[in-house]
Amino acid sequence: MKKFINQAEDFIPEMLEGIYLAHPDRFGFVNDDRHCLVTARPVPGKVGIITGGGSGHLPLFLGYVGRGMLDGCAIGDVFQSPSPEQILAVTQAVDSGAGVLYLYGNYNGDIFNFDIAAEMADMESDIRTRTVVAADDSAGAASGSEGVITRRGVAGIFFVYKCAGAAAARMDDLDTVQRIAQKAGDRVRTLGVALSPCIVPRMGKPGFHIGDNEMEIGMGIHGESGIRRGPLLSAGKIAEEMMSWLLADSPCQQGDEVAVLINGLGATPLEELYLMYRHVHQILAQSNIRVFRVWVGEFATAMEMAGMSISLMPLDDELKSLLNAEADTPMFRQLSA
Amino acid sequence: MKKFINQAEDFIPEMLEGIYLAHPDRFGFVNDDRHCLVTARPVPGKVGIITGGGSGHLPLFLGYVGRGMLDGCAIGDVFQSPSPEQILAVTQAVDSGAGVLYLYGNYNGDIFNFDIAAEMADMESDIRTRTVVAADDSAGAASGSEGVITRRGVAGIFFVYKCAGAAAARMDDLDTVQRIAQKAGDRVRTLGVALSPCIVPRMGKPGFHIGDNEMEIGMGIHGESGIRRGPLLSAGKIAEEMMSWLLADSPCQQGDEVAVLINGLGATPLEELYLMYRHVHQILAQSNIRVFRVWVGEFATAMEMAGMSISLMPLDDELKSLLNAEADTPMFRQLSA
Repeated sequence: MKKFINQAEDFIPEMLEGIYLAHPDRFGFVNDDRHCLVTARPVPGKVGIITGGGSGHLPLFLGYVGRGMLDGCAIGDVFQSPSPEQILAVTQAVDSGAGVLYLYGNYNGDIFNFDIAAEMADMESDIRTRTVVAADDSAGAASGSEGVITRRGVAGIFFVYKCAGAAAARMDDLDTVQRIAQKAGDRVRTLGVALSPCIVPRMGKPGFHIGDNEMEIGMGIHGESGIRRGPLLSAGKIAEEMMSWLLADSPCQQGDEVAVLINGLGATPLEELYLMYRHVHQILAQSNIRVFRVWVGEFATAMEMAGMSISLMPLDDELKSLLNAEADTPMFRQLSA
Repeated sequence: MKKFINQAEDFIPEMLEGIYLAHPDRFGFVNDDRHCLVTARPVPGKVGIITGGGSGHLPLFLGYVGRGMLDGCAIGDVFQSPSPEQILAVTQAVDSGAGVLYLYGNYNGDIFNFDIAAEMADMESDIRTRTVVAADDSAGAASGSEGVITRRGVAGIFFVYKCAGAAAARMDDLDTVQRIAQKAGDRVRTLGVALSPCIVPRMGKPGFHIGDNEMEIGMGIHGESGIRRGPLLSAGKIAEEMMSWLLADSPCQQGDEVAVLINGLGATPLEELYLMYRHVHQILAQSNIRVFRVWVGEFATAMEMAGMSISLMPLDDELKSLLNAEADTPMFRQLSA
């Protein structure tokens, strides 16, 4: 295990200490618990947006807390859900009377704990909460017969944060922020491909194995099984296979304008992500789908996993304007277009 | 070689095509050559700043072309210098009469070719150029007796770009932009540590070897030999050794305020970079050095190399204000503080 690490059990506490030391004017924590992160620059009267989930995916989740995006994050251990008490503490700190949107990825542990927190927030503190669960992984669609609920939440949640966050920042009310988050969440689809595993520090070894010449299309960001494992293909062939699956599963249609996210899973160089984007752009053009804007980089990782994902979201004028709005968080900044 | 790639010889051309497709409103190229990148949003009358160097280090170099930073970049093949003709073409495109600063890292091939380009620019086009060479690698200081000239240019060049770019953006003249770049360059020091090699696509295998339980402190971003190779230590021990070397070599003194850059070399998760920053912050505090601001992420990579570097730059009021200025490039954005 080649990591910059001390004791494995101190990995998250020490990482969090580093986060707060690096961004003292941006982040604070409540309840005397560094897992309960809140923005240091709250906006009175604004709808609060909270996310949460397991660690190991930076900049997801906590990196998106900041102006124009999110207001708080409940932080779990590596690949573990935060507790209902942690989510509740963040909720209480973030609510300024306009209510709080819970916006997180589709994992059972997270759903369970956020739902408990929502009940506690209502009963103990009379805080209105709403929930939107991001479930964008097109690979998940293959593994169940219950429709959207089988999809995992992966990198596409970035678009949902961006749209909902921009709506809250312009002081939209809770109903509207929820509606916009749901619309973005309904539209975005993601498909990933992994070339190597990642190592959870407490385990000390890879949680799964990918052969020296293998890849797995559709693998989840915790190493969940994907759609197809096979020999590593050329970038062009990988892009074709991924886009074929993604376009079949996405609500994108000919003539649409889309937002595209080319996301690195951790170890994949930016050069390769741009090389992949070239193929994605060409395939979209062949399908008569126009790219409104593309974001390329690491937005949702699986620690040192080599691999990447492609997200597509067909747009209307409302989503375009929200995507283009300014945002300023410690790990994502964008000036207004 | 597990890369998203087609033919190795097409790696850079296809990557560049992806770059221009992704950022059509930000980047253009001149001379019918994608290696000659210029900003699509030139500012009339501004001093132009050009950089250049080998590929494989994104976001370095081309990613910093944009508002508040650089105006053009001559792009070489992986780890190869761009040609004098490419540098000249960028120079001619970028000059708007106020002159052009060449700002790049200390590698012989780059120096040779930029110097030829400077002569050609003067003779053929009557363009005034100045040169500042970034030479921030503290490991280089160990390997020669000629002082600063033996240092390589590594991640610390980001601070030089930021300061010089902000000076040019506020319409400082060529003398001033050169003076500021030189001041930042004289002050910044960097030390890296590598945990794994990287693979140049045309080679198809690692250019050097690091054992399964080894690390190398001071290794360069092309795999140049460092200061010490040994068994992988804990994060705390690595930080102590690096900071001890770095502080001895840096002009930082007790009571200074510094800018800190915690840079990932490619495969190292952001979590580990923040964990390392915790140590760096604590060691600086013990030395009575205050952190003015820290940037954490991937700023200068060596493709899929696992590892990180620490850069320190002691500040005065002029550099602080330039560091805090707004910047907006495809791979680095910062709102004014």
